Amino acid sequence: METVDHVRLGEDGRSLVILDQTRLPGAEVYLTLRTREECWEAIKELRIRGAPAIGIFAGFAMYVLCLNYPREDFLRRFREDAEYLNSSRPTAVNLSWALDRMCRCAEESGGDTEALRRECQAILEEDIAMCRAISEYGLSLLHEGDGVLTHCNAGPIATSRYGTAIGPLLLGTERGMRFRAFCDETRPLLQGARLTSWELSRAGVDTTLICDNMASVVMRQGWVQCCFVGCDRVAMNGDAANKIGTAGVAILAKHYGIPFYVLGPTSTIDRNCPDGDHIPVELRDPEEIRSKWYREPMAPAGVKCYNPAFDVTDHSLITGIITEKGICRPPYTESLAALFRKD
Amino acid sequence: METVDHVRLGEDGRSLVILDQTRLPGAEVYLTLRTREECWEAIKELRIRGAPAIGIFAGFAMYVLCLNYPREDFLRRFREDAEYLNSSRPTAVNLSWALDRMCRCAEESGGDTEALRRECQAILEEDIAMCRAISEYGLSLLHEGDGVLTHCNAGPIATSRYGTAIGPLLLGTERGMRFRAFCDETRPLLQGARLTSWELSRAGVDTTLICDNMASVVMRQGWVQCCFVGCDRVAMNGDAANKIGTAGVAILAKHYGIPFYVLGPTSTIDRNCPDGDHIPVELRDPEEIRSKWYREPMAPAGVKCYNPAFDVTDHSLITGIITEKGICRPPYTESLAALFRKD
Repeated sequence: METVDHVRLGEDGRSLVILDQTRLPGAEVYLTLRTREECWEAIKELRIRGAPAIGIFAGFAMYVLCLNYPREDFLRRFREDAEYLNSSRPTAVNLSWALDRMCRCAEESGGDTEALRRECQAILEEDIAMCRAISEYGLSLLHEGDGVLTHCNAGPIATSRYGTAIGPLLLGTERGMRFRAFCDETRPLLQGARLTSWELSRAGVDTTLICDNMASVVMRQGWVQCCFVGCDRVAMNGDAANKIGTAGVAILAKHYGIPFYVLGPTSTIDRNCPDGDHIPVELRDPEEIRSKWYREPMAPAGVKCYNPAFDVTDHSLITGIITEKGICRPPYTESLAALFRKD
Repeated sequence: METVDHVRLGEDGRSLVILDQTRLPGAEVYLTLRTREECWEAIKELRIRGAPAIGIFAGFAMYVLCLNYPREDFLRRFREDAEYLNSSRPTAVNLSWALDRMCRCAEESGGDTEALRRECQAILEEDIAMCRAISEYGLSLLHEGDGVLTHCNAGPIATSRYGTAIGPLLLGTERGMRFRAFCDETRPLLQGARLTSWELSRAGVDTTLICDNMASVVMRQGWVQCCFVGCDRVAMNGDAANKIGTAGVAILAKHYGIPFYVLGPTSTIDRNCPDGDHIPVELRDPEEIRSKWYREPMAPAGVKCYNPAFDVTDHSLITGIITEKGICRPPYTESLAALFRKD
């Protein structure tokens, strides 16, 4: 498979090159970043997005920035820039996790830039290995010719190399298997149309884009053998928060007797969260529904819009949760707890 | 209720005034039509849309046009223009039905323009009465404060005065009841955002616009007591074809235990159609998904889009079918057949 190295060091070894995701699918534009302001803006403006990808980006950004720190002021500057980058999207867990990890490395190595280069490379490689393991487990559930429906974007550019939810399709395609992918466009931000359909078709997967409200018809036709979706947070009873619309897909899948799988790293499982009722749901700007992307607003100015960013899929609708450590099956209170006992 | 007289005679009594639906919701523009070419274009370009509304429009158009026919050539010109208008959207049943009815009236009255004026007025008034009866039956199912979810547009501007699916809300609001309406935006043509949310909020109904994929969340919160949708064709077993996405809403409603009603005139029930498998589904232009409305295309050029215009809701998901003759309940093979026996 032709991989998208969407976060990498520049040829000079002192700059950061990223794929500008805000320009997709119209243009494949790579940006070279050198300053902390450029890096901050790239996260803020969603040029780089997807929790794991933001973490990887933050690691590389800190490495590139620290190459210019004066020896005598290294650690103070490092912590200052890490704090600054962390302010770009305060709720992204992987961002602060990666920045903390880089800060710890900076302190423990006494500001050794070579150690810091290895550390950000390790963050990337660990993510690649994790995505690959998830993809292998997912692929073990697929058969030649299967139709797979996915929602939103949990592909390579949100993570690394194979991604999570579409990883099984990419890995299987690489091995010569053929699948038929159906991408929900995923309103209002259209990640399925703009990103997932771009990733899948680019990798040579037979890809069909549908509006979110067409998932039922596609399932009814018998074209879908399996649903694969990502996740933002999984509670200990198996309830899974993911992009708005995921729960609806799960209900349709149950109705049509189609297996529905959630794919994500074990870091997404929140050991402090007993069930979906404890997952707060972010409400976003109504203009994302009313006017974003359009040539003119598509609803009257006075009409209210309800715009939750996520929904929670009830554990009873989930056939399995696929992690890098294996596939958890119901009852999740047992199978998810067992994951952590193995540690 | 402030009604939208969206099809009416001009003040001179010799022209036709219509609300240009293509300009909604950004602008409320009324067009004055005088020529057959202007009338043809208004249907073709969807300035007037919704099967019943097109029928009403065609009646008024024929009346206005015939005022200029020379006495000696009246019937030939009448038939010629009726045939011409019928070519604007060949598949709209109400269009040819209304044109046939006007032609019959022209022949039987020997080209009496006053009889023709009464005939087109009768088409309008019969539709108003039918929508009102449907709305009354629908309203009998609602309670003060109920949340009602609707999909696509089956309101006044697709029909007359009250409309069908949102008629109960408009009628109840007129009587001082309060409801909370949730409109699915209804991708890809956005009739829910552009038309239904405009109609409901204009009538003073508490209206919230959501993306199609948010219906599940809104139901899960307990905000929806009932779903009301229109229909394009109902089979004799109760299977109902309506705008794409309707079947998905019905499956969600079933999952959450929320009653799901289909509203439409008995003329929508196809006595020659035994079940939903006999309803052909129109596939539309992929660009409606990929690029329509947007400032730039939202999916790669090479990606396939599947774009069915309708879906079929299985009769097992429908709580009742509300017609101008009453509310049919399962088993529909009996209750729908009984409707016609009453004739």
